[in-house]
Amino acid sequence: MGTGEFDVIAHLQGRFPLVGDDAAVVAVPDGHLLLAADAVVEGVDFLAGCPLRDIGYRAVLVNASDVAAMGGRPLHVLVTVVAPADVDLIALMDGAAEGARVHGCEVAGGDLSGTEGPLVVSVAITGVVEGGAPVLRSGARAGDGVFVTGPLGAAAAAGYRLGAAWYPRARTAEGIAARQAGATAMIDVSDGFLADLGHVLDASGVGVRLDAVPAAPGATPEQALGGGDDYELIFTLPPAASPPQGSVRVGTITGDPTERPLAVGGWEHRFT
Amino acid sequence: MGTGEFDVIAHLQGRFPLVGDDAAVVAVPDGHLLLAADAVVEGVDFLAGCPLRDIGYRAVLVNASDVAAMGGRPLHVLVTVVAPADVDLIALMDGAAEGARVHGCEVAGGDLSGTEGPLVVSVAITGVVEGGAPVLRSGARAGDGVFVTGPLGAAAAAGYRLGAAWYPRARTAEGIAARQAGATAMIDVSDGFLADLGHVLDASGVGVRLDAVPAAPGATPEQALGGGDDYELIFTLPPAASPPQGSVRVGTITGDPTERPLAVGGWEHRFT
Repeated sequence: MGTGEFDVIAHLQGRFPLVGDDAAVVAVPDGHLLLAADAVVEGVDFLAGCPLRDIGYRAVLVNASDVAAMGGRPLHVLVTVVAPADVDLIALMDGAAEGARVHGCEVAGGDLSGTEGPLVVSVAITGVVEGGAPVLRSGARAGDGVFVTGPLGAAAAAGYRLGAAWYPRARTAEGIAARQAGATAMIDVSDGFLADLGHVLDASGVGVRLDAVPAAPGATPEQALGGGDDYELIFTLPPAASPPQGSVRVGTITGDPTERPLAVGGWEHRFT
Repeated sequence: MGTGEFDVIAHLQGRFPLVGDDAAVVAVPDGHLLLAADAVVEGVDFLAGCPLRDIGYRAVLVNASDVAAMGGRPLHVLVTVVAPADVDLIALMDGAAEGARVHGCEVAGGDLSGTEGPLVVSVAITGVVEGGAPVLRSGARAGDGVFVTGPLGAAAAAGYRLGAAWYPRARTAEGIAARQAGATAMIDVSDGFLADLGHVLDASGVGVRLDAVPAAPGATPEQALGGGDDYELIFTLPPAASPPQGSVRVGTITGDPTERPLAVGGWEHRFT
């Protein structure tokens, strides 16, 4: 590796107190424990030459967003890096550490390995839901309102690609507020609003009637409906519930699973 | 991917009940929670053409062994696969599922991603230490006996490489027994006995005087001292403690950190 692996491990052990034994020993507050994992891969999620700090940040962000989509907050990340020899692991881990800091969680360990192939950063995350149950994708019911936590399509409108020094944050507080408001289903917008809403409809066995979807400044309707990498949350609320401040109603769940908006072109994740 | 990604995800959701939302919601028994992660990489940890089932098993095994080395038992694994298009993901996940079954833990989720590079299987694991404290690498003290859970060098003697249909198990029960016997430090033999013992000596700031080290049938002394992939545990016990049945004393911790056995050639992890 570009930086000697043992130098990097020593650096990480100094910087992240939980790193350094066969496994990290961690404390978890009372509540429901969440586990998730997501990798970012060169040539798929980012292009070769993308700043390493951005890649490290992004790998943590996508996982923190998965925890936010359950109504939880992140606790720990494990960062596994499979990197060719010329990769500056310190820069990469600086980005991961920044991602952990922004999302209020700790780097608890991971693994470093060489490769002659593309860079892979694989993150696993723990999170917790305190004082309530996690919000699954499967709980939407006919009559529920459909909400988003903010306008959509900003990343697509900006022609966003990793390397644009764009550091969005997962909507952790918004997800907790939605859960506390009584959200029946929730998901994060990573592949695009329609694609991700479709996962909720599938899991819940319901349909939807959409009204207007708020578009970010400069975003076309197609970008708002199909653009990914936004990290806003989609959630459903029973008719009697009060939506959290800042959320926008975009439609209503129906009992007919065939009632679907037409798909627009999904977010293109693959650059090669 | 060779098998459509959505087919694979549907297969996994049917097979692993925890898979299917943004994050898995898991229960953890009372005790200390452990977190670890370890990847296996084509060209580094295994050769191209190695049976996929073996690779999936191995990725879980190395993580279960990390949990065993803390005196814990594994609870959940997250399996992240970054695979070229011709990889049979079902076969790979069958191996991971077998690894989880053998080690008494559940597949709680993960991620699937395409790549044009080498296959990477990244696993994160949770474990628990119940009714006591985890055993770190750093607790060995002068006068402690040094033990191993069994003879060493079997993998090296057999010329073992992934693909040999060898399915060792992590020494979970042995690690728990060592902890309950009062082990002050513990590590698993993954890189080789001397290399891994060296990590304990470094972390504890102590030295060692070795007696004989038990060699597996057919293993040379060099293979017993330097061979990796054995998954036995090394642990230290205070003089008054009774060693668990089946463990073998191999030496004594000293207060002089410069007192080290001569290194023999370490296990060669890189095949390319």
